[in-house]
Amino acid sequence: MYIHAVSHYLPEQIVGNEHFTQLNGLSSDWIIERTGIVERRKAAPGENTNTMTLEVVRKLQEKVDLSTIDLIVGATYTPYDTIVSLAHEAQHYLGIPDIPVISVSTACSSLLNAIELVEGYFALNKASRALVIVAEHNTLYYNEQDTVSGHLWGDGAAALLITKERQSDADFAIKSLLTGGAAHTPKATTGVMMKPADGGVTMPHGRDVFINACQYMPKASLQAIERCGLTLADVDYILPHQANLRISRNVMNTLGLPEEKLISNIQRYGNTGCAGCAIALSEQWDTFQKGQRIVITVFGGGYSYGAMLVEV
Amino acid sequence: MYIHAVSHYLPEQIVGNEHFTQLNGLSSDWIIERTGIVERRKAAPGENTNTMTLEVVRKLQEKVDLSTIDLIVGATYTPYDTIVSLAHEAQHYLGIPDIPVISVSTACSSLLNAIELVEGYFALNKASRALVIVAEHNTLYYNEQDTVSGHLWGDGAAALLITKERQSDADFAIKSLLTGGAAHTPKATTGVMMKPADGGVTMPHGRDVFINACQYMPKASLQAIERCGLTLADVDYILPHQANLRISRNVMNTLGLPEEKLISNIQRYGNTGCAGCAIALSEQWDTFQKGQRIVITVFGGGYSYGAMLVEV
Repeated sequence: MYIHAVSHYLPEQIVGNEHFTQLNGLSSDWIIERTGIVERRKAAPGENTNTMTLEVVRKLQEKVDLSTIDLIVGATYTPYDTIVSLAHEAQHYLGIPDIPVISVSTACSSLLNAIELVEGYFALNKASRALVIVAEHNTLYYNEQDTVSGHLWGDGAAALLITKERQSDADFAIKSLLTGGAAHTPKATTGVMMKPADGGVTMPHGRDVFINACQYMPKASLQAIERCGLTLADVDYILPHQANLRISRNVMNTLGLPEEKLISNIQRYGNTGCAGCAIALSEQWDTFQKGQRIVITVFGGGYSYGAMLVEV
Repeated sequence: MYIHAVSHYLPEQIVGNEHFTQLNGLSSDWIIERTGIVERRKAAPGENTNTMTLEVVRKLQEKVDLSTIDLIVGATYTPYDTIVSLAHEAQHYLGIPDIPVISVSTACSSLLNAIELVEGYFALNKASRALVIVAEHNTLYYNEQDTVSGHLWGDGAAALLITKERQSDADFAIKSLLTGGAAHTPKATTGVMMKPADGGVTMPHGRDVFINACQYMPKASLQAIERCGLTLADVDYILPHQANLRISRNVMNTLGLPEEKLISNIQRYGNTGCAGCAIALSEQWDTFQKGQRIVITVFGGGYSYGAMLVEV
C-alpha cells in the first residue's frame, strides 16, 4: 500500500493569539508556553468540511489523475453534513459512479482509521486506488470564549491518493499500520467531546487527554516500528497528532529522540483534528529523501490511537 | 462471515400520526397512504445514540458473550457525540482495551457500510469477532413542523455480533455484500441532508430520493444474488431500508416478488435510518427457517446504497 500523492488546504483567515487575549485575557506568551500555538486558521463564512473537501480534491487533481479511483473514504468529527458526507461531496464532484464511498468520525485519530479501512478494501480486492479526505471545521462547533480549549482549534483539510500497487519511485510505502480504541480508560468518554446539539467541542479533562496522548503515541509508534523488524534508530521523523507542542515534545522525550526528528505545524495551524498530520505530510512531502522513514502517530478523543510507518 | 446474534432497542414513547395532524393538519390517512407509517418512537430526554448503544449492547450480552470481541464499528448520522462516538461508548462500557474502534456516518446505508468494514478487518486478520452498532436519534435533529419529512422519522438502535467463523448452526451466513456511492447523480447532494449546525434533517428533493431508492435497491439486490450464483427464485425475503412503504412495495414490484416476501417495520417505527433493517432482522430473527435466504438492501442520502445476501 502506497501514498502516491497528497494535497492540503488551509483557510485564508489567520487568527493570532492576540484575539484570545482580547476575548478573555489569555496572553500570547501563556498560550505559546502551554500549547506552542502562535496562530491558527479559521474557515470563512460559507466554508465547511464539504467545501474544504473540494479544495483539496482539486489540488490533488493538479498532481494526479483521480478519474480511476475506486474508493473514497472521508473523515471528520466536525461535519457540515452527516448524510451528504465529505466523501459523497467528493464523489459528486468527481462524477465517478458505483464505487464504495464511506465517511468515518473517529476523532483526531481518524486519518489512520481511514487508511486502515482502505487497507481492508484492498485486502478484499474491492478497491485498489483510494481517495482519502480528512477535514476539520473546528470553529463551527467550538466556543472561542472557552479559556480551556477555545484557543487550541484550527480549520484545515488534506487529501491523499492511496494505491495498492506502487505507482512511481516517489511513492511513500506504508510498511505497517495499527489503530486502537482506548475508551476503556476511566475518563475516555468525558475527556474531550463534540456534541453537535449540546455544547459543541469541549474538553473538561484536558489533563487526562494530555497524559493518555503522551502514553499512547510512543507505545503505538514502537509497535508500528517493531512490526517492520526495525528499531527507533531506523526512523528519521516522528509526525504526531498536532494537538499540543508539549505533547509532541513529550512523545519525543519518551522515545529518546531529538527534536530535530519532530515534524510539527501546530505553531501555525493549531489543532486541526484528524487533518493535522496529513497537512504536515503534504507540506513536507518534497523535503523527504529516498529511504527515509516517518512514523505518523495519532491520538484522539474517545479515546483512540494509531501509528503508521511510511518509507520514502 | 456470520451474524451470530442481534439485538434492538426502541424508545418507549410512541408518537402517532395524530400528533402531526394537530401540528400541521396532515391527516393520519394521508400519512399512511403516502408512507405506510402509523406510528414511530421518540427518544426520551436524556436518551441519545450513545445511551441507545448501551441498551442494545446490554441486550446483546443477554444472548452472547461479548468479552472476546476484537473490533467495534458504530454507525449513525444523528450523533450525540462525534468524538466520543457510539463505538467508543460501547468500548468504554465493555472495558475491552486496544481493539480497533471506529464510527461511520454514511446515511441510511451505513449498516452495510459498517459490515463491509468488518469484512475488511476479517480479511486483514486484524479481527475475527466484531460488534456492529447502528443507532439513530432522528428526533434530535428533525423539524417536526416540516410537512415534507417531519412525520417520517423515528428513533431506534440495534447491535449485531459478526464473526469470521461459524459459531453455531443458528448463525446467519453472509454470502455476499456490496456497497456503493451514488453521489454522481445530479440531486444526490441536495436530496436529503443532515447539517447539525444548519437546519438538521431536511429533504428538499424527496421525489428524487424516492426515485433513486426505487432504482438502486432492486439493482443492488440482483447483484448480491448473482454474486452467489443464485436467482430471485432462491430468495425468501427482501428486507429493504425502512424509508417508506411505497418505496419498499416498488422494490418488490420491480423484482417481481409478492408482498409476502417483504419484511417491513416502518408502519410501527417510521424511518429509523441505518438502524431500520437491523431492528427488523432482530425482531424477525427467531421466525426464519433453516436454509432461508434474505436480501437486505439499503439506500441512503448522499446517495449511497448496498445489498447483502444472508442465508439462515
